Amino acid sequence: MRILLVGASGTIGSAVYERLKDDHDILCAGRNGRDVQVDITDEESIRQMYESTGRVDAVITASGSAGFAPLTELTPEKNQTAINSKMKGQINLVLLGIPYVNDGGSFTLTSGIMMDDPIPQGTSAAMANGAVKGFVTSAAIELPRDIRINNISPNLLAESADKLGSFFRGFDPVPGDKVSLAYQKSVEGQQTGQTYEVY
Amino acid sequence: MRILLVGASGTIGSAVYERLKDDHDILCAGRNGRDVQVDITDEESIRQMYESTGRVDAVITASGSAGFAPLTELTPEKNQTAINSKMKGQINLVLLGIPYVNDGGSFTLTSGIMMDDPIPQGTSAAMANGAVKGFVTSAAIELPRDIRINNISPNLLAESADKLGSFFRGFDPVPGDKVSLAYQKSVEGQQTGQTYEVY
Ligand SMILES: NC(=O)c1ccc[n+]([C@@H]2O[C@H](COP(=O)([O-])OP(=O)(O)OC[C@H]3O[C@@H](n4cnc5c(N)ncnc54)[C@H](OP(=O)(O)O)[C@@H]3O)[C@@H](O)[C@H]2O)c1
Ligand SMILES: NC(=O)c1ccc[n+]([C@@H]2O[C@H](COP(=O)([O-])OP(=O)(O)OC[C@H]3O[C@@H](n4cnc5c(N)ncnc54)[C@H](OP(=O)(O)O)[C@@H]3O)[C@@H](O)[C@H]2O)c1
Repeated sequence: MRILLVGASGTIGSAVYERLKDDHDILCAGRNGRDVQVDITDEESIRQMYESTGRVDAVITASGSAGFAPLTELTPEKNQTAINSKMKGQINLVLLGIPYVNDGGSFTLTSGIMMDDPIPQGTSAAMANGAVKGFVTSAAIELPRDIRINNISPNLLAESADKLGSFFRGFDPVPGDKVSLAYQKSVEGQQTGQTYEVY
Repeated sequence: MRILLVGASGTIGSAVYERLKDDHDILCAGRNGRDVQVDITDEESIRQMYESTGRVDAVITASGSAGFAPLTELTPEKNQTAINSKMKGQINLVLLGIPYVNDGGSFTLTSGIMMDDPIPQGTSAAMANGAVKGFVTSAAIELPRDIRINNISPNLLAESADKLGSFFRGFDPVPGDKVSLAYQKSVEGQQTGQTYEVY
């Protein structure tokens, strides 16, 4: 398959790339993407990306940021990062990408454990995760031309434990190698509307 | 208790008002609210509302709209209604309202069944519902001064079946009277971080 992987250079993206690279033709995308440059917070940039890539069989996104802040310091402004990036960024990749996905193709988005198992300072991310899950559950029943859509909700990755572990006290990190299997299941399987929890 | 009820004149709001009015002092709010005027899509309006009401024991929101559109016609622009109103509107009532809620008080938000049991044209609402649920799950662990927060996720209301039933084919509507019990449980009980599904 021809797969557009947004966030290919990231912690999750690299694991997904390793898992899929031998069997598929992967376009690596990101703001500084190897093959394609896109800023998912900018609709026009997403439109230009799809015009440059043309049709693909799968779009995977493992990108999008959210601000971490104690709830009492989470202003509507700070909350906007998660809305623009992790939430609208991923969702707009779908809304603008449907015409560019081949019949029977798929979208795979990324949320995260914080919506189910919350941590201090994580409310903005939890909100965006919930939005992505709700969007995917519903979009699945309406996508045309047998296009499928799933969401991967990973626990803290082992590869991120050094950097993020202090936020996730007591969480049991999962290896990126294991997380990448859920992306493979989404792309190569036939299910739709799922949120695969890799907890 | 002194309760601020945003959306008091609506289908759900009226049922909640009926349920709580004999035992509590209720401030009815909305754009054309009986006691307080507020537009939840406007941060400044929310700030002014709280300045005018001062401290309350509970904030309930049963308001917020979302655009209905087939997924292939759901542009990022159309999706923005749900983001600004049902999602950010309710969430900003919390972010800006914390200082105005008394110790041990509560917030109660409203999502809906479409994030779990999706319908055609409902993806934008499902997204906002998921965001509200994720937000509430996470905010609960960080709210200061024993303030609690819950989310009510109603099925289609019987009172809305004439107007909305054609979107909800095969759904079994629940009476507003029953839905209002979940709001009572949230306000008068002691649980937090819950999404009460009234399906
Ligand atoms: N790591 C974890 O433990 C973990 C666990 C659960 C969920 N998640 C979620 O998974 C997603 C990816 O996490 P990660 O740890 O792999 O992130 P990461 O290592 O920081 O990598 C992010 C990737 O996304 C790209 N990117 C960032 N902002 C972008 C933008 N505006 N437009 C286009 N591409 C952008 C980056 O490339 P450029 O810099 O070139 O743009 C990079 O390839 C995030 O939403 C994160 O919340 C992560
Ligand atoms: N009815 C159902 O079957 C059902 C089922 C599940 C979930 N829900 C959700 O529950 C919420 C309320 O539904 P409903 O059917 O009760 O709605 P509704 O009958 O249309 O009433 C909406 C209420 O919210 C107020 N409102 C609307 N926009 C506002 C704004 N921007 N700022 C402040 N107040 C605003 C309205 O008063 P003003 O006009 O004075 O502003 C009114 O009091 C919605 O989010 C809906 O999606 C409804």
